[in-house]
Parts: sequence; C-alpha cells; structure tokens
Amino acid sequence: MPEILAIDIGGTKVGFARVDNEGQVVRQLQVPTKATSGEDLFALLVSSAKPLLEVGPVVGCGVGCGGPMTTEGELVSPLNIPQWRDFPLRSRLENYLEVPVVVDNDAKALALGEGWVGAAVNCANYIAMVVSTGIGGGIVLNGELLDGATGNAGHIGHLVVDPEGNRCPCGSKGCLEALVSGTALARDLGYAPKDAPNHVKRRCGKLVGRAVGMVVNLLDLRLAIVGGSVALGFGDLFFDSAQHEIDKTCGLEFTKDVQIVPASLGSKSPLVGAAAVWWKKAGVI
Amino acid sequence: MPEILAIDIGGTKVGFARVDNEGQVVRQLQVPTKATSGEDLFALLVSSAKPLLEVGPVVGCGVGCGGPMTTEGELVSPLNIPQWRDFPLRSRLENYLEVPVVVDNDAKALALGEGWVGAAVNCANYIAMVVSTGIGGGIVLNGELLDGATGNAGHIGHLVVDPEGNRCPCGSKGCLEALVSGTALARDLGYAPKDAPNHVKRRCGKLVGRAVGMVVNLLDLRLAIVGGSVALGFGDLFFDSAQHEIDKTCGLEFTKDVQIVPASLGSKSPLVGAAAVWWKKAGVI
Repeated sequence: MPEILAIDIGGTKVGFARVDNEGQVVRQLQVPTKATSGEDLFALLVSSAKPLLEVGPVVGCGVGCGGPMTTEGELVSPLNIPQWRDFPLRSRLENYLEVPVVVDNDAKALALGEGWVGAAVNCANYIAMVVSTGIGGGIVLNGELLDGATGNAGHIGHLVVDPEGNRCPCGSKGCLEALVSGTALARDLGYAPKDAPNHVKRRCGKLVGRAVGMVVNLLDLRLAIVGGSVALGFGDLFFDSAQHEIDKTCGLEFTKDVQIVPASLGSKSPLVGAAAVWWKKAGVI
Repeated sequence: MPEILAIDIGGTKVGFARVDNEGQVVRQLQVPTKATSGEDLFALLVSSAKPLLEVGPVVGCGVGCGGPMTTEGELVSPLNIPQWRDFPLRSRLENYLEVPVVVDNDAKALALGEGWVGAAVNCANYIAMVVSTGIGGGIVLNGELLDGATGNAGHIGHLVVDPEGNRCPCGSKGCLEALVSGTALARDLGYAPKDAPNHVKRRCGKLVGRAVGMVVNLLDLRLAIVGGSVALGFGDLFFDSAQHEIDKTCGLEFTKDVQIVPASLGSKSPLVGAAAVWWKKAGVI
C-alpha cells in the first residue's frame, strides 16, 4: 500500500509517522523541539524525519501545524513557535522531500482524521477540537471541512464564554482560550494543569461545553470530539460537565442529543490527521 | 427575461414579488396575515399571489420562511406561525402553482440575496442576519451557503452573549434571541421596541456585535450584514455600537477590519432573498 510521511508540529515536540491510505500508522517517532532559530527548527525537522524516509519511498507528505497560517499553509506563524513567522513551511518541505506537500491547521487536520478513521466516521456534521497548550478546532459541515476567508475557520478558542473573564492575548475578554487553555490554567493555578483540583476540571468542562453548545446552535452539528492533553487528562469530570452544559445550552429541536466525546485515536490522532490532509487532497478520502 | 414568484413569509405579513434572473423586483405586494388555521393561512397565501400570477407566467417559485424546518423546507414549523407545525409548504405550493418550488429559511435566503445583488457582492465569507420579531442568520463560507445537518445552520440567535441574562424560550440563558429580539425587547420594555431609549439601542448593538464577533473568530468571515425592523429602526446608534464591540472582540490577525453594515436592499431584501433561493437552485447564481 502507498504510504506518506505525516508530520505533526507542536510547540514543544514534533511527531512523524508513515501512514498508509487506510489511515494505518505504520511507523512513528517523536522528537522534542529545542531550536534557537527558525532555520535550526527546520533543520531539526528534516533530519528527524530521516529514519522514516529510509524505510522506503513515500508518495507525499501531510503536515498539521499550529496556526495562524496563510491560505493552504504557505506561510506559517504558529502562536507557540515564535521562531517561525511567515515561514514558508510547505515549499521548504517540498523542496527537501521532492514529493508533494500539503499543510493545514493541526486542529482542522484532527477533524479530518477523526472523520476518516476515528470518532466521526459516518458523521457529516461535527466539530473536533484540541484543548492543550492552546485551543484549536476544525469544523466539518455536510461532509466538508470549513476553511473560511483565509483558511482559519474553526477557532473555537475565541468564543467569549465569560464576558467578565480573563483578558485574552487576542485583545478580547473571557475567550475560552483565556480561561481553559493549558497556558491560561498554568498561569491561574500557579502549577501544572494536570494537578488541577476537581472543581477546576469541572469548570473547564462546563466552559468548553458552553462554547461547543454555541457552535452546535449556530451550525446545526451532531457531534463534538475533543482531544489534547488538558481535556484528555481531566477525563470524565471534564467530559461529564461538558455534556451537561451542552444539554443545557442546546434546547432547539435540531440541537438535541448532541454528544461530546474524547478523540478516539488517542496519541495517534494528530498524525492520522496530518495524513488525512494529504489523502484528502489526493482524493482518497 | 424569465421571472419567478418570490414569497417571504413572516409572522404578521407575507410579501410577494415577481423577480427576474438578475435580481430585479418587477412587481410586488404585501398582505397582513390573520388566519385562524394553517389551512386558512395557506388559502390566504395562494389567493394573495393571484394578482402577480395573472401578469404572466412564472418559471418557478422561491420561498423564504421562518424556521425551523426539515431539510429543503419540506415541512415547516415557523416559531412565529403557530398554525403551521410540520406543514408541507413546498409540496402544497408546487401542487397549486404547477411550477417547481424551493423553500429555505428566511435568513439564509437573505444571505443569498445580499450576496447576489446586495451588500455582499464580491464577498465570499460573510454572515447575514435579521434582527426583527426574532433573530435569524445565514452564513456564506467560501461562496457556499452553510446548511448543517438539518438545514438549520446560521442560528446566531442562540449564541450566549450574557451567561447571566434572560432565560430563552430554547431553554438556555442569555441567548442573543432572549435579549435583543423584538419579542424580548417588547417584554422587557413594556412598549414597542421602536420607542426604545438610546441606551437600549446601544446595548442591542453591543450584544449583536459580540455575537457577530464570535462568529467571525470561529469562521474567518469578512463581513456582517444586518436587516430586520429592530436593527434597521435603531439605526446608527445600533450599528456604531455593534462595530465597536466587533473591533474589541476580533483581535486575531485574520479577523481584523471586519465590517458590520445594514442590509442594502432595504425592504426588498427578503423578497430578493427568496428569489435567490430559486435562482441558486436553477444554477443562475
């Protein structure tokens, strides 16, 4: 079966995998990213991929990367990777790998992957989101991933869930990002979010549920899938609170019985997502 | 030029027009709706249309109607028309008129019309909304009107803009609908919304701006168009407050410089929208 190279680029680590055209992760590896410059980071990226490329040829490369980015990921400026500002990731990778490369937002990639072989198989209207260092999302409506004017649709982190809440780096107040992201929690708690007390885990679930409920009301969705270390680490307390708040927020006839579930592909979810970006472009999905 | 019959069905009045394939309203009329039963209302509808049908043949009929409704408007249950619950509007009209009939949500129709010959010409990513007796919306993304699982995408009225605000008929709290719709304002003021004091007009603008700002952040839009008697009646005070709140809410790189403007087609906007539903289906738009 043909395989591609999938790359998931995060703020502290980069994941690589060979993924076939049925969504199977054939082989994977992960490296921490400590780079002083954008060029160093790119050099680390391509050298780290070598063990997977030596196994055999790949027919392409799909990349999930933090946003924002310009259309089709030509220039990336990930919030959590300050070394890259308008970095021409797609073309640089394509020049190096000598196969076609496609790049998209990591949360949009996750949405595609979960629809391909994960929790959203057979669901044409859903949101997939990541609650991790930051908060991102991707929305599939009538089977199509939403892009928006510059490819940035899905930014659920900037719904205002508490108008009197924390100031957000975006300039607004009370954004989900400013209250529930790993960065916001670490700042508010004074320690790592994984050690948060139960009432904080429940409050995070409630606020995520409120944001998801609003998106469900707005867009007529059936399902929300949540990944990311913060949400998955908070577990049932988080998901039960989120479901409860969604049930309260979604009372219209067409919004009843919406479910919120954990990302089903676990730690492989971002890599399968990155692969899905490529296989989608190739017409396989 | 070929003409169609456009019908805009509201809670207190129904508008009719002949509209050509370039969006020109050739002839129009309006009737108040006082009907004791669903059958009476349908009889009133078809008898009122007669003067426009006698002018000459029409090639089809496009209808904008309050939601909710089932897919493609087969069964309509408009919140503000209690006589119709699961009323088979499309098929009944088609049987009577003997031309193809298409039905969609009135706010989605407005969005299509404004994109065709109104304020959103040349804009591929926008929301159009109505702030009237109720609140509705339609969203165009990458040139396509969003439908959602059951065709109900665009319900901006059920974004939570004040979590401590009024209980909404949908069961949630602080929905835009529960605070800014004509119905909510009349209840809170104790008199007609058109006589609202300036601070209320400004607050309505602010809350609409907050909801629009959230949708812009979520979906990467460039423009918001607002029609409806409440918003248009409140005028500059409303629109200036809304723009100010959008500027505060939209601080991400891709959300800057979003504009909120009044519906440009004025009172013809809903009829042009209803016509757009038909001409879109016919492939003309």
